[in-house]
Amino acid sequence: MNETLDKLYKNPDNKNIEENFQFILFGGTGDLAHNKIIPAFYNLAAKDILPNQYTIIATGRRYDNKKEYLDALYNSLVNKKGKVDNRIWQLLADHIDYFQLSFKDDNDFKRLKNNLENKAKKEKVSDRIFYLATAPNFFAEIAKKLKSFGLLDVALENNKARLVIEKPFGHDFKSAKKLNDTLTNIFSEKNIFRIDHYLGKEMIQNIMVIRLSNPIFRALWNKDHIDNIQIYLNESEGVKDRGKYYDDAGVIKDMFQNHILQVLSLIAMEEPENLTAKEISDKKVEVFKELADNDLSNIDRHIVRGQYDSEQVDGEKINSYQEEKGIDPQSKTATFLALKLFLNNERWQGVPIYLKSGKRLNKKEAAIAVEFKDDFHSAYLDQKNIDNNLLLIKIQPEEGVSLRFNTRKPASNNKIIPVEMEFCQSCQQFFNSPENYEGLIYDMIAGDKTLFTSWEEVCYSWKFIDKIQAKCEEENITLHKYPALSQGPDAADKLLETDGRSWLDKD
Amino acid sequence: MNETLDKLYKNPDNKNIEENFQFILFGGTGDLAHNKIIPAFYNLAAKDILPNQYTIIATGRRYDNKKEYLDALYNSLVNKKGKVDNRIWQLLADHIDYFQLSFKDDNDFKRLKNNLENKAKKEKVSDRIFYLATAPNFFAEIAKKLKSFGLLDVALENNKARLVIEKPFGHDFKSAKKLNDTLTNIFSEKNIFRIDHYLGKEMIQNIMVIRLSNPIFRALWNKDHIDNIQIYLNESEGVKDRGKYYDDAGVIKDMFQNHILQVLSLIAMEEPENLTAKEISDKKVEVFKELADNDLSNIDRHIVRGQYDSEQVDGEKINSYQEEKGIDPQSKTATFLALKLFLNNERWQGVPIYLKSGKRLNKKEAAIAVEFKDDFHSAYLDQKNIDNNLLLIKIQPEEGVSLRFNTRKPASNNKIIPVEMEFCQSCQQFFNSPENYEGLIYDMIAGDKTLFTSWEEVCYSWKFIDKIQAKCEEENITLHKYPALSQGPDAADKLLETDGRSWLDKD
Repeated sequence: MNETLDKLYKNPDNKNIEENFQFILFGGTGDLAHNKIIPAFYNLAAKDILPNQYTIIATGRRYDNKKEYLDALYNSLVNKKGKVDNRIWQLLADHIDYFQLSFKDDNDFKRLKNNLENKAKKEKVSDRIFYLATAPNFFAEIAKKLKSFGLLDVALENNKARLVIEKPFGHDFKSAKKLNDTLTNIFSEKNIFRIDHYLGKEMIQNIMVIRLSNPIFRALWNKDHIDNIQIYLNESEGVKDRGKYYDDAGVIKDMFQNHILQVLSLIAMEEPENLTAKEISDKKVEVFKELADNDLSNIDRHIVRGQYDSEQVDGEKINSYQEEKGIDPQSKTATFLALKLFLNNERWQGVPIYLKSGKRLNKKEAAIAVEFKDDFHSAYLDQKNIDNNLLLIKIQPEEGVSLRFNTRKPASNNKIIPVEMEFCQSCQQFFNSPENYEGLIYDMIAGDKTLFTSWEEVCYSWKFIDKIQAKCEEENITLHKYPALSQGPDAADKLLETDGRSWLDKD
Repeated sequence: MNETLDKLYKNPDNKNIEENFQFILFGGTGDLAHNKIIPAFYNLAAKDILPNQYTIIATGRRYDNKKEYLDALYNSLVNKKGKVDNRIWQLLADHIDYFQLSFKDDNDFKRLKNNLENKAKKEKVSDRIFYLATAPNFFAEIAKKLKSFGLLDVALENNKARLVIEKPFGHDFKSAKKLNDTLTNIFSEKNIFRIDHYLGKEMIQNIMVIRLSNPIFRALWNKDHIDNIQIYLNESEGVKDRGKYYDDAGVIKDMFQNHILQVLSLIAMEEPENLTAKEISDKKVEVFKELADNDLSNIDRHIVRGQYDSEQVDGEKINSYQEEKGIDPQSKTATFLALKLFLNNERWQGVPIYLKSGKRLNKKEAAIAVEFKDDFHSAYLDQKNIDNNLLLIKIQPEEGVSLRFNTRKPASNNKIIPVEMEFCQSCQQFFNSPENYEGLIYDMIAGDKTLFTSWEEVCYSWKFIDKIQAKCEEENITLHKYPALSQGPDAADKLLETDGRSWLDKD
């Protein structure tokens, strides 16, 4: 696109962060800091969105001094981006501090407090963001120490200290509740930012815009016009080096409890009356509540669990899940889940919602498919097997929207064939989407909670997930083996075939 | 696309003409025969759709013998197509006969009768198609002679003689009625095929499929969801060598009475209960009747007439309309017309329909634009100036469908921007649309009247056009001059600006 558009993209809506801030990054030497958080700051710096005065205080134990740490960050950045603009990097690096700290050492927290206090006085800081990019078992401990060593109340106006928590937020309702009780003793709900990085994705943020700013879709967004909804988040990778975490979590906690249910809530929620984070969250919570109230008595016919098996691909053996590093060789953890459910409300009554996610599938592809009904009797529909209209919101790897509609096959006797209208967002340079974390970090600094999950959302999603887990154990639901890099268990196809439907992610 | 699809396209639905036929082409040496009719037969032959036994008997005076005529046809075909497959040409040429005939000479008709009769006996012909590709003033005369010299009742089963009439069908209601009375004394309505070649265009044939086979569009196809409809048939050429005809007709008879009103009727008609030509025509006639009943008391505010003026373009002078060959230098004929109208029925009450056509406009472009309403109050629409959703059915030069919808500008603070989903039919080799006349000729031979205009359609469209003409004269509606190769008169833009709208063909 042209230069003006390019400039506009560089800093859309001229968004800027005005307030000086301190960004205290626990786990500053970890993968997330290296691969997501610092690169996101680099992008924000490149777009000139950051204020003159800010400090990123990265804490960790691995490096002895700031220089070592900055060198490591720089190398990661080069690895990730291929090419780094050294001028931008220097702008950013001038704002990064390294603070050697052990979570266990009370003295370190006291030193950190003094450090922040001195900086804050010099730089007139009004916002302080504590970002916990650590293992989840440290969340509560760190939060408590922030409070007990006085890091929350020094040199700040209006209690603008915020806590950012990486996922997972608990491993079931009980543990999540316990963690939350601890945190809300220290921070108010409005200052707790629970990350679901999926919400940072451009097309996820686009769902509400597509639904609400297009009268044609808005008019059709209910059971009268929609036949079924499918959400699939297919991964081709295995568990990689996350085996230990994954074997506890499985696909249901790793993907469903957060990402998939979040996407579902955005697709299915009632229309918010305004765009405040609170109002949007309230509408999403209604969906989560309905899920938690869901009658799971037919779960055996509505769920398919799977685990990937080894497979020879191009003469190379792909490990089975049980052979992966960190996995119990007898593990019964599901790496694949397909789930059919209903929302029993006015808008969606009777519309099946099919959810699917799995590891080691034949392709990486995430999308939302909204398939429209065909239940009317037009003269043209005497022709058999006319495809339903289909709205596809593509999340990744391609980002975009397509609409399948029927057209007359040229030169035919009014033969009807389906074709697709396409809008490819990721194909267009102008639309080049930013990294998830760029928007999330901007929002946490700006204090906008829209893209973060509220306690109520987390609470009811865990209740739903706990219920499914319990039912699966109670009814001893089969764990289907599926070959690595396949389409998943056949049983997942049968789940839809029984309803006269099929997954819309099939070629 | 792949080979199978290519093959399918070659003869979609395996359509074939089974019955042997004689195709008697009056005006066989004219432009239409050379540029449209014979090339269409060539394409049908290439697709192997024609039966083993058929004859095209081209009548005319220009050539002395068949060889001269075939040579001339071949040259025209090469000119038109660039490359001709001689094998196909020979297949076709074997079926073409040349018959020298003058419309004035009774004896020639007697000779033609004998010729047809002899051929029919040999070839077991059951269908006979008389195609009048002549000047309109010969239509009645030729038809009468076909009857009086017995060409309609020889060697045919079930009275399968058909008459095909090129446009224009009359020059007002009175003359059309007179012509029709003459023809219906000779042929029954079901055997009269009135050509509007626009109906042969792929995207025009596609209108009903798009409307009726897509639940999402079908559900929105009324005043509750549609804000306005625009149909524009913009031409960049001048009158060329058709000056004499055009100066009598003007844009209103040349484009509105037939093409534009036909397109409008397909867009606006109620849904047919079946796909018979009769049922579809009945539904179209309802629209024409409503037009004819239209209250034109505000016509002065709903119509813009224009005539192109001379203009310098790239140092070259483009003639004004009045300077063109065959045009009265004082001519007041409109070469441009924009018209706003309403259909006062349940489906369309209050939805303005804007029609526009003109010669010597800045680009050649024909399309139907269906703009959807935005009259609801969603939180997202606090943003001003959000474009309406827009369905665009592109007729020419590009064929296709696009849908403008709103999306979130990536990396923005939920800024909403319009983007387009596109389906380009003419871009796809597989979809390569056939010539208009190919389908029309196939249908006239197959006896399918769907793409031909019924007497009732012609009748009421003339009544409407006559009424507009009379009103324009009565109220002395201004004739705006507009520069050649411009967007037309400014007044046409004001027509919509007054309503808070704008033409959707502007860049």
